[in-house]
Amino acid sequence: MPPQNTSLAEGAVDDDVSSHKLSLLKRRRDVMTSANILFYESSKQELLVERAEGQWMFDEEGNRYLDLINNVAHVGHCNPKVTAAVTAQMQKQYTNSRYLNSAVIEYSEHLLKHFPQELNTVLFCNSGSEATDLALRLSSYYNGKSEYICLKGGYHGHVQSALDVSPYKWKGGAVKQPEHVHAVDAPDAFRGKHKGNYAGEEYAKDVAEVISRREGKISAYIAESILSCAGQILLPPGYLKAVYKYCRENGVLTIADEVQVGFGRVGSKMWAFELQDVVPDIVTLGKPIANGFPMAAVVTRREIAEAYWKSGSQYFNTFGGNAVAAAAGLAVLKEIEESNLRQNALEVGEVFLRGFEDLKQKNDIIADVRGFGLFLGIELINSEGLPAMEEAYFVRNRLLEDRVIISVDGPDENILKLKPPMCITKENAEMVLEKMNAVFNKLK
Amino acid sequence: MPPQNTSLAEGAVDDDVSSHKLSLLKRRRDVMTSANILFYESSKQELLVERAEGQWMFDEEGNRYLDLINNVAHVGHCNPKVTAAVTAQMQKQYTNSRYLNSAVIEYSEHLLKHFPQELNTVLFCNSGSEATDLALRLSSYYNGKSEYICLKGGYHGHVQSALDVSPYKWKGGAVKQPEHVHAVDAPDAFRGKHKGNYAGEEYAKDVAEVISRREGKISAYIAESILSCAGQILLPPGYLKAVYKYCRENGVLTIADEVQVGFGRVGSKMWAFELQDVVPDIVTLGKPIANGFPMAAVVTRREIAEAYWKSGSQYFNTFGGNAVAAAAGLAVLKEIEESNLRQNALEVGEVFLRGFEDLKQKNDIIADVRGFGLFLGIELINSEGLPAMEEAYFVRNRLLEDRVIISVDGPDENILKLKPPMCITKENAEMVLEKMNAVFNKLK
Repeated sequence: MPPQNTSLAEGAVDDDVSSHKLSLLKRRRDVMTSANILFYESSKQELLVERAEGQWMFDEEGNRYLDLINNVAHVGHCNPKVTAAVTAQMQKQYTNSRYLNSAVIEYSEHLLKHFPQELNTVLFCNSGSEATDLALRLSSYYNGKSEYICLKGGYHGHVQSALDVSPYKWKGGAVKQPEHVHAVDAPDAFRGKHKGNYAGEEYAKDVAEVISRREGKISAYIAESILSCAGQILLPPGYLKAVYKYCRENGVLTIADEVQVGFGRVGSKMWAFELQDVVPDIVTLGKPIANGFPMAAVVTRREIAEAYWKSGSQYFNTFGGNAVAAAAGLAVLKEIEESNLRQNALEVGEVFLRGFEDLKQKNDIIADVRGFGLFLGIELINSEGLPAMEEAYFVRNRLLEDRVIISVDGPDENILKLKPPMCITKENAEMVLEKMNAVFNKLK
Repeated sequence: MPPQNTSLAEGAVDDDVSSHKLSLLKRRRDVMTSANILFYESSKQELLVERAEGQWMFDEEGNRYLDLINNVAHVGHCNPKVTAAVTAQMQKQYTNSRYLNSAVIEYSEHLLKHFPQELNTVLFCNSGSEATDLALRLSSYYNGKSEYICLKGGYHGHVQSALDVSPYKWKGGAVKQPEHVHAVDAPDAFRGKHKGNYAGEEYAKDVAEVISRREGKISAYIAESILSCAGQILLPPGYLKAVYKYCRENGVLTIADEVQVGFGRVGSKMWAFELQDVVPDIVTLGKPIANGFPMAAVVTRREIAEAYWKSGSQYFNTFGGNAVAAAAGLAVLKEIEESNLRQNALEVGEVFLRGFEDLKQKNDIIADVRGFGLFLGIELINSEGLPAMEEAYFVRNRLLEDRVIISVDGPDENILKLKPPMCITKENAEMVLEKMNAVFNKLK
């Protein structure tokens, strides 16, 4: 969350902005709320996106920007195969999932091929938030318990039940920490309390401690398989294995949130939880699943999915699992497979990571670089050892002038975050590294 | 919710079903959950929808069914103008609402023209469930209170916060009535405790009683403007006026759920709350808003919308308010306006209502017929004065044999429910009435 520019929210604007953009900004303020903030919070910088294609976005003057952050446009902005699939299905039918329709069945079968055998059932939603809500409820229906463990800095969605397990959103005060949720430290082996080879196992003990303290009350443990809003934190080796062991010994279900990191973004694996060599009980999927067509899903074991029905209730979601979403989702899966996008993520990610390492050698402010595939982070710490928020925004804003779009995230807003469309190339990465080098030189 | 055919959920099938359909049913069971029930819960009857157009759905053999229930396909299944709008926007860009984009602004402006002036701000979501969740939170952010009043039999969505205010879903036991929610009697002036000219004001006193009993604790009152799942119940005259008066005198916000009944379905008005001559503080929109493209919205007064931001939080919804949803929504609004669908709803609705009245004269089992425009209900009561659930399903299932799709709803599952695509014709209505006449003759 960037610094809140309240003056803009109240109507202040820069002087040298095109009248078209100013007019749109005013019209937007007239009908939408200040809570719907724009990305740059500056009328001068704000991007008016006229069109987008692959890894590029174009403004109203035709200027081309390299997009390093839109992970929703997973197989490329306006991917023509996805558009064709959506159009064809919209011409055919898009009734809801209470009618038998082959599209959602074919999609489910194709999706499940990418999961370990025991994760054999799919439930459909419209957003990652709905997927979190459903995952938590499935867990409680299954084991009859109602408390949850999440990670500090974690974010799992914007509906109330998801906000309840999203400490990232607690800090503003709008969301109070609920009594049924227990937030443990994010397993940050770089800046956190545990470092070194055993950090994973050490952090896992925090989960064991809550399970023990709240004996018999915890329904589920939920975490992203790489922490995004919490600051692009890679789970230390052995962490989930130890956590899941404690959970399973105590009847606590494990939920892996793959909304940001799933669908091959990490390159070597389809799902980031696989990096930890574990199998969750429930997995939530969203953002990239249909390249921007609103869709999300929960994948789980049959016995957990059946708990819903056994609880005495139907699961019906008006739009969830409709045939058009299924067609869009299938086009995305096929594009990942046929265009070898996981391999591309691995190779381009390596170019980025090596380049970031070089930058780190030359710039003291870069304290850590990390990531897998195309889910990357650069942590900035200033000379006093403090999170370098201002510098992070400086880099972001200077890169915009170079027509490169990058974001800042983390609880201290000092992490440069990259999660570009999966079709980005090595040449694009090299161009970014060159521009970053220049920007960091200006920072010195 | 139809009677639960658990044997089917576990794999039983009818004998004379095509092998293609049987195969799909089996494949569906293998990847989806029993909780995702199919409409007819019978492999023989289950509709395999191959394509749909306007008010028609077509099965795998090309048989054509008149669709009386898919209110999501508001301007007609596969409306070509909506498909064209979605395709064109998908070819251009569909980044999220953190980037300035004209589509969502144009849509918001157009939508707000249909609202009273004080309802001047739009927030976007992906489903009616998310809209309910957001409406409740906006209310609590605005007035700092955390209890809600809803109606018995009411349904407002499937995420936890929405289920909390959905007594329709409490009966299965999966959802426990939460302590912060107070359900008052649905203002049923036909079978309920109050009848006659003053029923509206009498029922409103139940709301006043809760407000008084929970002094200073109630944040909002939420109700559909015509009750759908509760049994196609028309609010008695004066009801909302009296309720809103009590609410406003006590700082309680009023939320009108127009997810099922909005967008001109009632014919004479764009929104069903207008039938009661009131202006709610918050309105939720969903299902028909984009003809099946996943989209929903909350419309409210500026000061309430701004409470979100003032609470210290952003409102960001990854898919909500994306340019493609906005384009689909705009195409729907234009189609309602340009094809005079409200007028059509009024005229065809009148043909239905008059025909239902005739049927009522001839059939004792029809206890009441009611509705506005194309949101209609027929209440069946047997000779012992009890809700005629079995007969309602008999009518539904016999009409399916006549290739007419109708549903059964209400807490006692004795209401035949009609909410067809808005392009249905008088000739279609007359055909339905003829077939219904024959089916009711069989019931005698």
